[in-house]
Amino acid sequence: MADHPAARGLRDDTALLDGWVITHDTIVEGVHYLPNDPPGTVGWKLAAVNASDLAAKGAAPEAVLLSLTLQGDGAWERAFLDGLEEALPEFGLSLIGGDTTALPAGAPRVLGMTAMGRAGDVTPSRSDGEVGDALWLVGCVGNAAAGLKQPRADPAAKGHLVDTYRMPWPLLAMGRKLAPAAHAMMDVSDGLLLDAARMGASSGCGVVIDLDALPLSEAFVTECGDDLAARMFAATGGDDYALLVSLPADSDPLGLSLPVGPRVTRVGTLVEGAGISLQFKGQQVPAPETLGYEHRGT
Amino acid sequence: MADHPAARGLRDDTALLDGWVITHDTIVEGVHYLPNDPPGTVGWKLAAVNASDLAAKGAAPEAVLLSLTLQGDGAWERAFLDGLEEALPEFGLSLIGGDTTALPAGAPRVLGMTAMGRAGDVTPSRSDGEVGDALWLVGCVGNAAAGLKQPRADPAAKGHLVDTYRMPWPLLAMGRKLAPAAHAMMDVSDGLLLDAARMGASSGCGVVIDLDALPLSEAFVTECGDDLAARMFAATGGDDYALLVSLPADSDPLGLSLPVGPRVTRVGTLVEGAGISLQFKGQQVPAPETLGYEHRGT
Repeated sequence: MADHPAARGLRDDTALLDGWVITHDTIVEGVHYLPNDPPGTVGWKLAAVNASDLAAKGAAPEAVLLSLTLQGDGAWERAFLDGLEEALPEFGLSLIGGDTTALPAGAPRVLGMTAMGRAGDVTPSRSDGEVGDALWLVGCVGNAAAGLKQPRADPAAKGHLVDTYRMPWPLLAMGRKLAPAAHAMMDVSDGLLLDAARMGASSGCGVVIDLDALPLSEAFVTECGDDLAARMFAATGGDDYALLVSLPADSDPLGLSLPVGPRVTRVGTLVEGAGISLQFKGQQVPAPETLGYEHRGT
Repeated sequence: MADHPAARGLRDDTALLDGWVITHDTIVEGVHYLPNDPPGTVGWKLAAVNASDLAAKGAAPEAVLLSLTLQGDGAWERAFLDGLEEALPEFGLSLIGGDTTALPAGAPRVLGMTAMGRAGDVTPSRSDGEVGDALWLVGCVGNAAAGLKQPRADPAAKGHLVDTYRMPWPLLAMGRKLAPAAHAMMDVSDGLLLDAARMGASSGCGVVIDLDALPLSEAFVTECGDDLAARMFAATGGDDYALLVSLPADSDPLGLSLPVGPRVTRVGTLVEGAGISLQFKGQQVPAPETLGYEHRGT
């Protein structure tokens, strides 16, 4: 049933239909966000994670449809919509439709969004990486995973890491600049190692990641350190909404007049073979059993 | 945030963006379907209810994105996808993307779909009905509501009414034929009285419905009778996926070379004023407190 050319074989995070990049992301209470997270930040996050998929395809955001579940007296949902209303124009998105459904009492909220963006001249897939490509990361990893730990321990926790977990910023301008130069591009949502392994597998390449090179924020290092365990945590934690880009070896992204702001770091290479291998201080280190966040039933 | 012209002020069931009719419908376990319904029929129904929104706009179905929650060992979801796979080509739809998310153990499933269809020359809204228009219904009402009662009482119940509740058929060919002639058109999903009241309110008209005229199936009459109470039940039950069309008074849909099959019945009129009034055996009868299925939190 997925033989439509727009499906790209369902190997990508987005579909491409008549010049539209289309994506759908759903977030679940207790799975993708904490029940105590301020509802406005959940609205922001739903818009941001969808916009991040558009960013990774170099698309210009246009419109969203919202699937909103209703629970209780609706106060949570009103605050959620306030956060969504704040986020959408920041990302160039307008709400054009959707659905509202009642939930049985006590059921976790399930919030879905379909986002549409206008494709640029090039819409990089995740599967067109080539052996020899350099893997570049735009943005940091680990902040959101570290930020999620804090409110789990203390619901009143605040600060840069918590903010990054709750209210990510999709790298839209970066994505548009990088798309024409990229062989493959995707956003890092489930963990750098898992998403890089997916890019490698769908491109028919092996992946080497240099853990020393991982861009870590000062706040992350203060909280978690920067030893091998901390770097492994950052590389597998997920929710980063960084961009992972494979560029030809001779292409220097610093020559692309990229927007100022997010760090641009070479973190690895696509190689002959299959699977993922990790380097740390010049040595190969074993890959962890869990490369990131896998969507499994419970 | 809904000021994009594609949003049609969110007064419609669908958005219209660059020649695409776009809709999103979500169904919830225990709210829109019974936990014991065969999962394949739930997959069919999710596709059908989205296709029905495309039918009501006269659009040609093209593609869907699926939001699938995962619960337990995945056996339910595999059977659900089998039913979806059966339905999509019947309705001219292809799966082009979506998202899969884990649910906490025991949480009700929440299944979302965004459907896209190519707009025809005319995409009728629900708000362009005019005073004096005749209201026509394509299809029957009441079958699904009666069909829902049977498996509630006996999970092994079978037959035409149960099938109609579980596996509705969107009236796609009818919708495409009627759209160019219609002032306003929508599908009847939440109950004829509620949906007709919405068409009237958004068109700035009052609505008169003639309960005698309601098209009832033989199976419905056998099960529920055809007295006032039965007709009120049929007019408010919902899940009909019939089409409600307002046509100029002098327009006869029987002259439109409509596809053979579903009944085409004049059920009412748009009038000066506001609100809904009901006729039965030539007398005005009071409207029920609940006109149909309202999506409220619990």
